[in-house]
Formats: sequence, C-alpha cells, structure tokens
Amino acid sequence: MKNLSYSKVKINDGFWEEKQSLIRKETLWAVYERFCETHRFEALDCTWKEGDPDEPHVFWDSDVAKWLEAAAYLLTFESDEKIESIVDEAVANIQRNQDKYGYYNAHYLVTEKDKRFTNRYQHELYCLGHLIEAAVAYSDATGKNTFLDVVCKYTDYVEKVFKIEDSAPFTTPGHPEIELALVKLYRKTHERRYLELSKYFIDKRGTVEKEIDQKTDFTNDVRVYMQDNVLLKDRSLVEGHAVRMMYLLCGVVDAAIECNDAELIAACRRCFDNAVNRRMYITGGLGSSYHGEAFTQDYHLPNRTAYAETCAAISLAFFAHRMQQIDNDSRYADIVEKVIYNGSISGLSLDGKAFFYINPLEIDLETNKAEKTTNGYEWGMPTQRSEVFSCSCCPPNILRFIASIGDFACGYDDDNVFINQYFASNIEFEGTQLEISTNYPVCGNVSVKYKTDKHNIAFRVPAWCKSFKVNKDYYISNGYAYIKAEGEGILDIVFDMSVQVVMSDPRVHENAGKVAVMRGPVVYCAEGIDNDVDLKNVYLPIDAQFETYDGEFPIPSLKTKAYKLAETDSLYRTADSCFAETELKLTPYYTFANRGESQMLVWFMRK
Amino acid sequence: MKNLSYSKVKINDGFWEEKQSLIRKETLWAVYERFCETHRFEALDCTWKEGDPDEPHVFWDSDVAKWLEAAAYLLTFESDEKIESIVDEAVANIQRNQDKYGYYNAHYLVTEKDKRFTNRYQHELYCLGHLIEAAVAYSDATGKNTFLDVVCKYTDYVEKVFKIEDSAPFTTPGHPEIELALVKLYRKTHERRYLELSKYFIDKRGTVEKEIDQKTDFTNDVRVYMQDNVLLKDRSLVEGHAVRMMYLLCGVVDAAIECNDAELIAACRRCFDNAVNRRMYITGGLGSSYHGEAFTQDYHLPNRTAYAETCAAISLAFFAHRMQQIDNDSRYADIVEKVIYNGSISGLSLDGKAFFYINPLEIDLETNKAEKTTNGYEWGMPTQRSEVFSCSCCPPNILRFIASIGDFACGYDDDNVFINQYFASNIEFEGTQLEISTNYPVCGNVSVKYKTDKHNIAFRVPAWCKSFKVNKDYYISNGYAYIKAEGEGILDIVFDMSVQVVMSDPRVHENAGKVAVMRGPVVYCAEGIDNDVDLKNVYLPIDAQFETYDGEFPIPSLKTKAYKLAETDSLYRTADSCFAETELKLTPYYTFANRGESQMLVWFMRK
Repeated sequence: MKNLSYSKVKINDGFWEEKQSLIRKETLWAVYERFCETHRFEALDCTWKEGDPDEPHVFWDSDVAKWLEAAAYLLTFESDEKIESIVDEAVANIQRNQDKYGYYNAHYLVTEKDKRFTNRYQHELYCLGHLIEAAVAYSDATGKNTFLDVVCKYTDYVEKVFKIEDSAPFTTPGHPEIELALVKLYRKTHERRYLELSKYFIDKRGTVEKEIDQKTDFTNDVRVYMQDNVLLKDRSLVEGHAVRMMYLLCGVVDAAIECNDAELIAACRRCFDNAVNRRMYITGGLGSSYHGEAFTQDYHLPNRTAYAETCAAISLAFFAHRMQQIDNDSRYADIVEKVIYNGSISGLSLDGKAFFYINPLEIDLETNKAEKTTNGYEWGMPTQRSEVFSCSCCPPNILRFIASIGDFACGYDDDNVFINQYFASNIEFEGTQLEISTNYPVCGNVSVKYKTDKHNIAFRVPAWCKSFKVNKDYYISNGYAYIKAEGEGILDIVFDMSVQVVMSDPRVHENAGKVAVMRGPVVYCAEGIDNDVDLKNVYLPIDAQFETYDGEFPIPSLKTKAYKLAETDSLYRTADSCFAETELKLTPYYTFANRGESQMLVWFMRK
Repeated sequence: MKNLSYSKVKINDGFWEEKQSLIRKETLWAVYERFCETHRFEALDCTWKEGDPDEPHVFWDSDVAKWLEAAAYLLTFESDEKIESIVDEAVANIQRNQDKYGYYNAHYLVTEKDKRFTNRYQHELYCLGHLIEAAVAYSDATGKNTFLDVVCKYTDYVEKVFKIEDSAPFTTPGHPEIELALVKLYRKTHERRYLELSKYFIDKRGTVEKEIDQKTDFTNDVRVYMQDNVLLKDRSLVEGHAVRMMYLLCGVVDAAIECNDAELIAACRRCFDNAVNRRMYITGGLGSSYHGEAFTQDYHLPNRTAYAETCAAISLAFFAHRMQQIDNDSRYADIVEKVIYNGSISGLSLDGKAFFYINPLEIDLETNKAEKTTNGYEWGMPTQRSEVFSCSCCPPNILRFIASIGDFACGYDDDNVFINQYFASNIEFEGTQLEISTNYPVCGNVSVKYKTDKHNIAFRVPAWCKSFKVNKDYYISNGYAYIKAEGEGILDIVFDMSVQVVMSDPRVHENAGKVAVMRGPVVYCAEGIDNDVDLKNVYLPIDAQFETYDGEFPIPSLKTKAYKLAETDSLYRTADSCFAETELKLTPYYTFANRGESQMLVWFMRK
C-alpha cells in the first residue's frame, strides 16, 4: 500500500477540522510566542554570546524545525503571509549562518565551537533530520526551494564527514531521526546518496563503534538507551528511550522498503509486535519509565507513574503508518487510530495553548503527594498542563502531527484505495475522488461519495468494531472490507459504536482485576470533578450499561451505574459483598486535566 | 492493667519455645559473630584510631546494647557463663572508657571528639537509651549492678547538661528512645529525677528549639521526620521516621502514666488510632516509604515498595503493649498479636541466621527489576534475606524482642489476671499460678490450669475470632471474656480458627479490589515456589474454601481453588468472564523468602 499524502486530503468538517482550526488559530501562535520568549527563533541568527541569557541548546534547532514543518503543512491548503514570512526569515537566518561546508547548528556555531560532531549522545544530527523534514514540507507547500538547498548542502557535508571520509569520532547518531529524514529527502530529490546515507547509519548501528564520546561512558544501559546494543536486523525488542526507538524504526521501515531489505523488514515486524502486544498503554502511549524516558519490560505498564511522552505516542503513529506500506493489514491503521484519538492529543489542552509532556493514565493527588520524593520524579507527577517546557519537543510535535493528520487518511495500490481513517474530507488523486462525510468518532456513520474509474475501495473495519453495516457487497481481507467501485456511487457504512468494557492481558500486573471503557476508538477516563466518589473505590461490572450524553467535549460523555464498597473505621475487615450503587461519569481520556486539578482514572476495578 | 514481666512467664512449649530455642542457639551467635567481624564489640574499648578499619559509627553502641539486652533476657531462665562473660566484658569496657563526667559513646570518644552533644539529628542519646534498657535487663536477670551504675552515672551527666544547666546546643534528641529508657530506669531505681528528665524531653519536643545543628538545616520535613513539628500533647498523627515515632510514643505513654498526664494520654490514644486505623499494613508493618523510612499519608500502603521496617513493627508492639496499661481493652493486645505473628518475625529467617530490614508485602521480580532505578531504592527492593546490614538495628532488635516475648503474655489488676497472648507457659505471680497449654496459633485450643485465691481470669477474645467456646460462664467487656476463678480449676477455650478472607478499607488504593487470607492471627502469602501461576493473575472468591495441610512450617499451609484469566497475544481485549480454575497454595507470611528468590503476594484479586 502506498501512502496518500496529506496534501491530497482536504479535511473539511468534524473532529479534525475543529482541531486543525484550533491549532492554526491558537497552538501555532502559542508555541511561537513561547519560543520567541525563550529566544529559540532569535538563536537561529547565531549572535548569542557568553553572558547573554538563554544559551542556545543543542536541540533548539529541532524545536523550531518542527514549528516550521507544522507551518508548512498549514500553508498547504491556506496561504498565510505572516506564517510564510516567519518561515522565510528563519530559513534566511539558517542559510546566512551555515558555514562554508554547509554545517549548521545554533548551539555549536556559538558555543562549544570546537565540539562539532563529537557528542554522539546528543541531538546534532537529529536537528538536521528535523530541518530536512521541515524543508521538504515547505517546498511541497510553497514550491520554494531555498530551505531544501540549505539542508541538502548540510546533508552533503554530513555524508562526506560520516560516510565518505568516515572522519567523525562516531559513526551513528545517538538520537535517531536523520534516518527517516534522509529517506524523505531522497524521495523528494531522487538523490540516491541520501537513501544510501540513511541505510549506512542504519546498518552501522549496533556494530562496535569507534571509541568516542568523552561525556558518557557508554555502558550497556546507555547503548540500550540509544538502541546501539544490537544490529537492527537482529532487533526483536523495542528498548531504551521510547522516542529514539520509534524514530529509528520509522527510518528503518522507510529505508528497508526503498532498498527491499527483507531482514530489516522482518525486524520491524518483530519490533512492532513487541511494542503493541507487550509494551503499549491502551491509549497508545509508550515508555513506562521516567528514567531514560524509556521502555522497561514486557507487560510493565504502571498507570499513575506512566511516562507515555506525547512525542512517543506520535512516533508510534508514524511507525505504524509506515508499517502499513509493507502489509495491507488494518492492524497498523488500528494503532494509528488508537494514538490519534487518545495518547497523542491528550498532550494538547482543549484551548490549544497548554501541553502535557507526560501522559499518565491515573492521577491520584494524595498518592502523588505521598510519593513525590520516592518515585524519582523530582517535580512530582504532572497533574496540570504547562504552557512551556525547557525541553520543548512535544508542543511543536503535536502541532505538526495535527497539521498533517490527513497523511493517515488513505493508502492506495494499483487497484484499490484504502480508507484507513475516517476523516470528513475531500480526497482526490489519480482521477479518483472521494467525498467523505462523517462525524466520526462521535458516531460510527460514514458516507463515502466516490467517483473513480481506477480504484476499488477497501475500508478498514476497526479492530474494536464488533459489527458494521454497509450498503454494498464486500469481502473481508486482513481487516479491510473490499467494495467494487466503478464510476460514481455512495458507500454508506455504519460501525456499531456501542460502549465496550475492556481488560488487559493478565500479565499487565497494574491492570490485573481491572477494566477500562472504550467507545469506538476513544478510551474513556473518569475525573474527580465529575464524580463525587473515590474513583479507586469504583467497581464496574463487565456488562455495565452506558448512557451517552453531551458533555463539554466534542465526543460524548458517558454515565453508568457502578458500585463501591463502604468505608469504615477499621483498616481491615472480613471480606463482604456489600456493594453500594454509585453513578460513574466518564469523559474521553484525551480531555483530562482541562478543568482544574482532579483525580483521574482509566482502569477501574471489575465487579 | 499492670504489665506482668517476662520474668514471670516461663515459656515451655509450642511456637515460642521453638523460636526462643532457635535464637538462643543460632540468632544470638549469628548476630554476635557479625558484630565481631565488623568490630562492633571491639569498638567498646575505644582504641580505634585514624587509619584503622571500621570507624565506630555513632549508633554502634545501640546495636551492641540490644544484643546485651537480649542476652540478659536469655539469662533470666537459664544461666550461661559464656553469654554472661561477654556481657561482663562489654560492661567493663564501657565502664573503663566512660569519661570523668560519665559520658560514653564509642564514636565520639575516638573520633569527632569535640562534637559531643552537637548533632541533634543523630543517635547519641538513643544509644544511651539502649544502654539503659540493657543495664536494667541485666540487673534484673543477674542481680549484677555494675552496668546499672555505669548508665546511671552517664544519665546523671545528661541530666546536668540538658536539663539542669541546659548547656547543650539542642534540647531534645533527634532520635527518641531515651524517653522510654528513662522511665524504665526510674521504675528500676525509683529515682524520680529520671522520670522527670524523660518528661522534660517529652514536653520540650516541638517547642522552638535553640538553633543548633550545623549538619542539617531543619526544614519542616526534617522536623516532621524527627517528630519535632508539634507539641506531643497536640499530636494526632503518626508522622516521619516510623521507628522514631513509635519509640517516642512508648516513652510518652510511660511518662504520662507515671505522671498521670491526661493530655498526653489523649494524644497517645489519637496517635494509636491513626497508626492502626490509617497507616498500618495488615502484617503490623509501619512506614510506607523508603525515603525517611517514614509514614506518608493516611491509607497510603503500597505493597511491593512497602518499607515496613522490622524495627517499626517491633516498636508498634511496644507501643500497643504500653497503651494496654491505660485501658483494659483487648484492641491493644490484638495489635501486639498481629505484629508478633507477622511483620516482626518475618524479619528473621527460619534458620535464625538471616534478616529482613524491609518487609514488603509483595515481591514481583520482573517489576522490581523494571523499576530498580525508578523507585529510589538504589539497591532495588530486597528479595532475599541478608546476614548483616551496615545499619544493623533490626537483627539485635528481633533478638531482644523474641527473647522477651513473654512480656506480652499477661497483665493484671487487683482483681483479674488478663491473658493477652496465648503462649504455652507457666506463670506465677502474687500467689496466682497459671499453666497454659496450647499449640496456638497452630490451632485455637487453649487450656489454662489455674490456682489462685486472688485473681479472676479475663482472657482476650481475638478481634479476628468469630466464635469461641469455653467451659465456664463468662461475660464480655472490651474484648475480654471474664471468668470467675477461685482455688484450682481448668479453663478450656476453643477459638474458631477457620480461614478468613479479608479486605481493606477501600481508601487503601493499593488494595482496592483485593483480598488477603488470614487464619487466626496469621496473615498468609503465596510464593512462586509453591504456585505454578502468575500470582497477580489469581482471583480469589470471598467465600473460597480452604484446606489446611502440614507444609514445611510450624504453622499449617493452606490450599484452595482459585481462578485465573487467560493470557493472549493481544494486550487489550473485550472484558470476559472466562475464568479458569487454578490451585492456590498459601503459606504464613512470616516464612516468605526462606526458599530462594520467588514471586510473593499477600493481596489477591477478589473474584
């Protein structure tokens, strides 16, 4: 299945039109202002000197690059002079300060000037990766190629130092990202050297490296942290820093497809299975541990202390989306769907101005307080969103993610167009037109008006869906319903979106004896603000009946009858079954912590 | 109710005879050897000098003192020249090195010589407290008074410095213990100055202190840690370092009784309620957090990361035992019973040679590994017992605790003898004789052959006991069954010791939806070594039927039918009720981790 670019998918209504309007109006500028306040944009002109505030950090270029990339996506369907002028000025700054070799990094050009390409652990090539992604997007959106020229020049220099001359003190970057960006650049420019450089970085990873970095001692833990402990073709586990792992796998899929490397593709399949079948929160979140922002062990998915970085969820969607190009199997788009309605957008406040870096599945204010000094989170677990972080990868990441959400909509091959996500949109490519009308995921009705003389239609039947109806004959293969489409027609699909009570594999110890609630792809939580009961004392029958009601959010809220046990004076007593009825109100998980500090819970006791 | 001394209670059979034989034969010498290896006994002669190994730590005197105290208890019913000569030599060493004022501390006499009485935070007066306890016990056991003279001389000096001249840079000790020891010394010597010094330390605590200690900045956290944040008469919460809190409260009860201080007694009642109704593990363990070895919040009782120091459980028994002298209420002896059969003796291996400092209620090897670096336990949670700790308070503490276990047996007033604990023993005091035959807690049958012309008998009906039979008329008051006893007779009591499934107050979030198993006072656990099932995936019905069987331990093991859920390839699935049957084998909690490294669980999912 080939991917259909976001640029062919004009979202025009519903959930995502609302989110894209919000980020265009609010988030883009909220992030921009925070970045200006912290001198991230100013840093691009490389005039910072000792004594000035806000010394440019080695990863700042990537923060700005993700903002520029998001800006480019937003310019695709709607031009905006102000946005364009900010991008152009940033690009001009970068171009002007690029050295004669093409090198550019706002940190190493003004401080640690002699340390270029010495710190493998850090984000130097990662920054170039993000600049490449932004440059490709900006060229696609505007046809302007200056940015592309800038990054090509820098990339050529990287190729020379790292591959041709092999003169850098290390061979592969500690923070992956450039691998996927190089394939993007290859696909844009058709310059095969870029693909080969990506493949070079991939194949060298996990070999015995030159001995290098002064700052770190590269213990096995550090090698695991940066995915350097095993050759990629031999990898079966997702390990170490979750975002690094996922970005790396994105690049591996991309390069493996282009190079038709069966060993790497098999490794990606194993890693995907390991991630989604052993190490993923029900929200699509990844990374169980604050320490190293990392994966830990199979089935170790603590809820209250979940790390589940916004960027990690986003990068899982990127990875799954790429895997789909290998197999026409709906399981990949199922994971994308899990991420886009849960653990990614939970990172953005409903007003579009504040963020979560960490997305726990439980807030227990008293326990958080009790364990503030015991769980290694020096600042305690977050219970409220922030407008800015010193390490600010997530805000511009969620921005570019939502701006390009259309990229997840469809794929195609010679015979079929695959509808992967149900976005109200107009889609047009290779003479095929789709007009998709839906209020998904508010309800499960999807109407597809099509006009095609080339493609039949295959639509994903979501894994959560127990039954659906469609007004045409179909057959099912690998989770897609295939429909014969000729000329014009309308496809009316209804997915049964009854509320479901779900459970975990029992090896997830944190969820043993617990159930969660989903409606369609949306995971629900309960918050203290809606519930006058200690949520940890709520027991939910697996056959609970739910009523939907319009709460304060675009997606319906739920209420149901639940049960609780009596509080007494005594800590311990003979077990009884004196459950009292209580009402439980549930709201979409992604909306949590938008109405003040409050208890929050996803996994409830099963009655 | 007055306490009947351990010296009147000759344990002669059953559970505690076996334990006392074990410690006499094994533990006393295992601890002695470890203490010799680490030069703790040698340190008493104060010849350590810069460059020698094992610089005497400020709390080493207390480690040795607790060993000496245990030795004294063991000499009560059975003389032993070897033991006595070790004590005498230690006492001689202390006496010889005591300075002209009476001061003695093996740390400050050889290092930091100018720092005497400057570090409030540390264990200096705590050490004196333990020396006093040992000296009183040794005088009681042997009639030798040298040790007593030594500690009186030192105590007189402390009184002069801290109370009469008030010339030390701090007023009350950071680590309590001396308060209770001073009352013991008063009761032994009838020297009222010692009681008054104890009361002085108690009343001054929580007042604004002189500004003192160079090493600590005495933030509010530190004040809470050492119970200095509030006046004792105003205290309602057990807070801070659990052992410090409990030792302090022991001293407060003792002094309050002697001084008839109603305000302090009321505070002790509040603190007792807070401890046992809000902050105590089902095993009698105290202290939820490794950080500060401390209490945290009401109902915050994590199982896997429980601190529950052996010394804290022991000190809860000491506190409860003292509270019983205020009220003739069985609830205090119920707590003593909970401690002595669970969270205290869990700290001692079955072979008597190895120890737990921390007594978790769950061992989950994989999760412990996953969270090794995330929970602040640099060494990970303990899963195996150690022969020695650098901070070695617990081994000699469990030793003196078991050696003097008879102290918990009975109380009396003018009219009644109260049987608080059911120990197979001969008891004789004030012309009353009791001959108690029982295999408790293996079974609930207790036979009491009595001969008395003064005391009626009141026996505790344990809080866990749903029904009992006795061959005499009785009435119940505050948990005691009162029997008229004249002359000679035999009382035959049978407590129903059916296995019970128990639950927590739902505010204990860690136990929400979970049940534990008790038989009589004994809390059970399951260990991986006996169970071929992931214990976290075991569901126990609240009406489960249990079969007892003779396992490897003095107390019966249990088996029952339980349930588990299927493991699948998928992390999340629709909740179902496809429980499969499984067998669950349970063993007494205190025996855990005696048969290799293994998963362990106390709280199971309720089905």
